[in-house]
Amino acid sequence: MDVRDTETILAATEDTYGGVTVDMKEKMDSNPFATSLTASMQLWKQQGKKGVWLKLPIELSDLVDVAKKEGFVYHHAEETYVMMVYWIPKTPSTLPANASHQVGIGAFVINDEGEILVVQEKYGKFGGTGLWKMPTGVVKEGEDISDCAVREVKEETGIDAEFVEFLAFRQNHKLLFSKSDLFFVCKLKPLSSTITKQDTEITDAKWMKIEEYMEQPFVKESESFSSVAEICNMAARKDDAYSGFIANPKTKKRPGAKSYLYCNKIR
Amino acid sequence: MDVRDTETILAATEDTYGGVTVDMKEKMDSNPFATSLTASMQLWKQQGKKGVWLKLPIELSDLVDVAKKEGFVYHHAEETYVMMVYWIPKTPSTLPANASHQVGIGAFVINDEGEILVVQEKYGKFGGTGLWKMPTGVVKEGEDISDCAVREVKEETGIDAEFVEFLAFRQNHKLLFSKSDLFFVCKLKPLSSTITKQDTEITDAKWMKIEEYMEQPFVKESESFSSVAEICNMAARKDDAYSGFIANPKTKKRPGAKSYLYCNKIR
Repeated sequence: MDVRDTETILAATEDTYGGVTVDMKEKMDSNPFATSLTASMQLWKQQGKKGVWLKLPIELSDLVDVAKKEGFVYHHAEETYVMMVYWIPKTPSTLPANASHQVGIGAFVINDEGEILVVQEKYGKFGGTGLWKMPTGVVKEGEDISDCAVREVKEETGIDAEFVEFLAFRQNHKLLFSKSDLFFVCKLKPLSSTITKQDTEITDAKWMKIEEYMEQPFVKESESFSSVAEICNMAARKDDAYSGFIANPKTKKRPGAKSYLYCNKIR
Repeated sequence: MDVRDTETILAATEDTYGGVTVDMKEKMDSNPFATSLTASMQLWKQQGKKGVWLKLPIELSDLVDVAKKEGFVYHHAEETYVMMVYWIPKTPSTLPANASHQVGIGAFVINDEGEILVVQEKYGKFGGTGLWKMPTGVVKEGEDISDCAVREVKEETGIDAEFVEFLAFRQNHKLLFSKSDLFFVCKLKPLSSTITKQDTEITDAKWMKIEEYMEQPFVKESESFSSVAEICNMAARKDDAYSGFIANPKTKKRPGAKSYLYCNKIR
């Protein structure tokens, strides 16, 4: 077979790193796909290509096995597709890894009376323990971390709040799906006071004196909870005893797009 | 067929959220797998199960198509396996998403003479532009962000350095593989001065007066670069004009495990 017969070579786009990407959008039977993939790989090897990316929509899941037999491995997957990859050089792969971190928030919402917003959870590690804790949650795809804190507070307690600053963050490894986790403690200012708790995940919600929060046995005994509580307690003072990272909105080049640079107040 | 015939039900572990996980480790032909999967799904639906997780190692890539025909979709994939999932309830899925963020660093390494460590890159956006920039890099799987900064500086320039503090961070969306990105600007203290630049990615590396760095046209014109440069310039002063987040090591319950709580200096 002449590998230069363009009929059998898969359509591919080139990137600036010496790689090619095949984005399979049309249905193709597995036998002609196998022939084309083998021919294409021969050509790309001759051309000195490095990484070959193969994106297969879930409708073409019968081609996954074909690609695996050709030597492809998985790179990542989302609900509707799997990305497979073949690194041609003998040297170690320099292909970029997929996302490595989950991002979560804990919301420290404190009112002018020194009361903080706390909840009891139905499920998970603290379900049924009676622990009063800050609302927490996970950043959704494409969501700003500061917006996530505002959203989670609203969802769990009905309280409107605005983001003030990041007080601290923590990185942990080997958590869900063996990925790492970044957890940001955010200070928020409440804009309303009447609690309407959410029923599916939350057993109860209330305003609690910060001293009472800190006196809970679990908070005192847990190194993690007590360290964060100590920082929150500092940040609750009105003498600027603690200074976190505020959100500086930056306009991006794309119209309508913005992003935040989070940093300390510049004095 | 009696779905309670345990011979045909796939071995599964239950979780506390009403879900089951099938971790396929043994080779199984696609026909008996299809029969077992259908019978298992019938049983789990009867039992009121919610999420069904199906982990398929790449050796069993021929079963991906079977699972898709049963109604499974992709959840995520790593080099050696794909995780598929089936959400049984009629209500929206509450299954946790996979990792959503890449994490990167920029290293602001400044010596006692007010010189910062800068490099010119071969590839990527700044390749061949003549821009002197800070060393940057991506956090590897399981790596602490502060360690990543130290490693990247060493790899790109040969300079030994120690982490001092985070100066700022920025979140961007819809980048590589449509994931979000968190970029942390880290201040480091150099422990050596002789540069040995890395050849594969770096064209040149040197110590440069911070004023000269800031005077580069690209740095002045880019909102992103100029904001970060301004913060770095503050952090370069010796009067504590700027205060970042330092690393507080915390001992974890697992022996030998540690993690950091990053926060402002507590005064």
